[in-house]
Amino acid sequence: MTGVDLDSIDLKHCEALDAADPLARFRERFALPDGVIYLDGNSLGALPKTALDRTAEVVGREWGESLIRGWTAHRWIDLPRIVGDKIGRLTGAEPGEVLVADSTSVNLFKLMAAALRLRPERRVILSERSNFPTDLYIAEGLIELLGGRHELRLADGTDIEGAIDDDTALVSLTHVNYRTGALHDMAAITARAHRAGALVLWDLAHSVGAVPVDLNGAGADFAVGCGYKYLNGGPGAPAFLFAARRHHAELRPALSGWMGHAAPFAFETGYRPAQGLERMLTGTPSVIGLAALEVGVDLMLEADGAALRAKSMTLGRLFAKLVERRCGRYGFRLASPADEASRGSQICFAHEHGYPIVQALIARGVIGDFRAPDILRFGFAPLYVGHADIWHAVDHLVTVMESREWDRPEFQTRASVT
Amino acid sequence: MTGVDLDSIDLKHCEALDAADPLARFRERFALPDGVIYLDGNSLGALPKTALDRTAEVVGREWGESLIRGWTAHRWIDLPRIVGDKIGRLTGAEPGEVLVADSTSVNLFKLMAAALRLRPERRVILSERSNFPTDLYIAEGLIELLGGRHELRLADGTDIEGAIDDDTALVSLTHVNYRTGALHDMAAITARAHRAGALVLWDLAHSVGAVPVDLNGAGADFAVGCGYKYLNGGPGAPAFLFAARRHHAELRPALSGWMGHAAPFAFETGYRPAQGLERMLTGTPSVIGLAALEVGVDLMLEADGAALRAKSMTLGRLFAKLVERRCGRYGFRLASPADEASRGSQICFAHEHGYPIVQALIARGVIGDFRAPDILRFGFAPLYVGHADIWHAVDHLVTVMESREWDRPEFQTRASVT
Repeated sequence: MTGVDLDSIDLKHCEALDAADPLARFRERFALPDGVIYLDGNSLGALPKTALDRTAEVVGREWGESLIRGWTAHRWIDLPRIVGDKIGRLTGAEPGEVLVADSTSVNLFKLMAAALRLRPERRVILSERSNFPTDLYIAEGLIELLGGRHELRLADGTDIEGAIDDDTALVSLTHVNYRTGALHDMAAITARAHRAGALVLWDLAHSVGAVPVDLNGAGADFAVGCGYKYLNGGPGAPAFLFAARRHHAELRPALSGWMGHAAPFAFETGYRPAQGLERMLTGTPSVIGLAALEVGVDLMLEADGAALRAKSMTLGRLFAKLVERRCGRYGFRLASPADEASRGSQICFAHEHGYPIVQALIARGVIGDFRAPDILRFGFAPLYVGHADIWHAVDHLVTVMESREWDRPEFQTRASVT
Repeated sequence: MTGVDLDSIDLKHCEALDAADPLARFRERFALPDGVIYLDGNSLGALPKTALDRTAEVVGREWGESLIRGWTAHRWIDLPRIVGDKIGRLTGAEPGEVLVADSTSVNLFKLMAAALRLRPERRVILSERSNFPTDLYIAEGLIELLGGRHELRLADGTDIEGAIDDDTALVSLTHVNYRTGALHDMAAITARAHRAGALVLWDLAHSVGAVPVDLNGAGADFAVGCGYKYLNGGPGAPAFLFAARRHHAELRPALSGWMGHAAPFAFETGYRPAQGLERMLTGTPSVIGLAALEVGVDLMLEADGAALRAKSMTLGRLFAKLVERRCGRYGFRLASPADEASRGSQICFAHEHGYPIVQALIARGVIGDFRAPDILRFGFAPLYVGHADIWHAVDHLVTVMESREWDRPEFQTRASVT
């Protein structure tokens, strides 16, 4: 955005930025509906056009024609590893360090349970008070299952390093906060935890595909992540898990299902863990979901990571500036870090009428989302959101506020999912 | 099969049986490849033709056009319950007693953990030595995670009732044995367990969709089952879990993810379990997989359960008789119960050359499978397997044995999945 004055930028400038955008060509690879400005790719990513062909192929040709033979003929059995290795390339992991399986929540359980076993003398899982709830709930459930010997200790996001002590078994954090977009310094926190003898688990749900992630560069022990946000894997896409190779031989799987057995098809009576990370697999892989996810991951692999981050930051900066400039008098308070190096690919504002404002925007085709109690959340998926989209989105916001459109009765009723 | 003499039955008789089969009309609802006789629907069910349209719709229209709004607009969020209730109708459960989620293995873990908490003073999970391995492995992993206070006790399938004692917390059995097809008496074993104060968990992987299941009629406490076998939900389809309503309020979820929270979208810091069985949900539902599974379940709901069982028994009886009559001299030993009321919808033979014989049959388009060490397994999905198919399958077996086709080198190499 060199040479562009954010205080005077207009639609024409935005269109010029789109024309010069090296990622602009990806937009046509997605099937986005007409009239929609989609600023919720951090909740559910858009549909890659080829995902439709690929799911038709896996259902019609692979399942329909190969039937049971598909497990070998189409390498269904290897998909957790194949797609996992591709995600590994997006996250600074080596081949064999990432597997696609289950949901993020289930993977959190697997890795938290494994981590506590690696630090049997320690009692504390340390997390962030405003972490995504499932990360906290899963830790709670595990601790209760284990009889309450452990403790989930919660700190503010800025106090994590100071809260790590000799009793910390595991530091469990989400790389980019789901509500505010605040970005943790993965390398610094991991180093601090390691100095204290603790392990670290990173949830990459809101970073992979939008923010550079270098798990091995940061020395991370474990990670989980989501397939349906910036990876564009489809609703309820399977999730992934990472464990650094140095831990593989010591990992004891709590969810010791047949797919994690050393010889799943020998049908032995007793469990023997597979050699590598495959021991963390549990049940039969979700083949159709894996096939759709692979399309999204392949598309992401075509894009340059540095360009993704640069564009994401530009979009965020532009959005924040335009809201400040054009909606300054309506009481929006920036809820994301003001320093763009400290935030992910989203901008959030707090507003007392956050819920109906988001609904009014959605009715206009500007899809962001609301997070209780008062957060308007806008995500910028750099593969398919453009600079002019940002201009138009703020234009709609101006209208919604000026005309008090948000005050209409139909925007007040809370739906269960937003 | 009234009036048909199995000792003299021929192809013409088989074709007459197909012509009179009230379930024959379902065959055309499946996309089965030409030249294939599919006797492996108990491993991966065939493709319902409409599953292709439905997955295209959920991907192209629902995901592509509704994007995040699909969670409410297309009721994705309710699919675990909607499809669960439909499976409930196939298994003698009430609405709200079945949920579709995760894999069978993960659901086993959830229910076993919950069951042990309901019987805190008891130490034993009792299972069958020849149970499907993942059922045993998951129990092992749970017991190890809990610190070894519990014990997995294994009995022979015929000795289960005698092995239940005052220390039995949970009896965990598969309704129809995956290798032999032996069918347990669900009501009798459940009653015996209850008299001893134990709970019972039934794995319906090889029964739902082929054998009558009446969970509440039998007084069952818990059940799990598979979506990709007789329910024809596609490779790696999501699985299901059942808990009798009398237990819901006391269930403490070990995998306490956000989807099982009383208010998932309030994003509270602490976990509060949902009111009913929904507390056993964990992560985000696998929407595409659920949509494909629903097609298979809907198709199964169109069929009459008594007709399914009657046809399945006829097919099994016919297959066993023809192998005995036409391949008697080749050393096949029936590995399934001889009494057809005591077996599910499959017939297994033990044979020292079981592996290459199965491979030779597959090369001829007769798809059954091999289960170590020496079992040839043939499943009869009554919705799409006909009587003439059985005749032709045995015809191929006769040729494979007579010509020693199985002895060819290409049939000796073991693949990892069969």
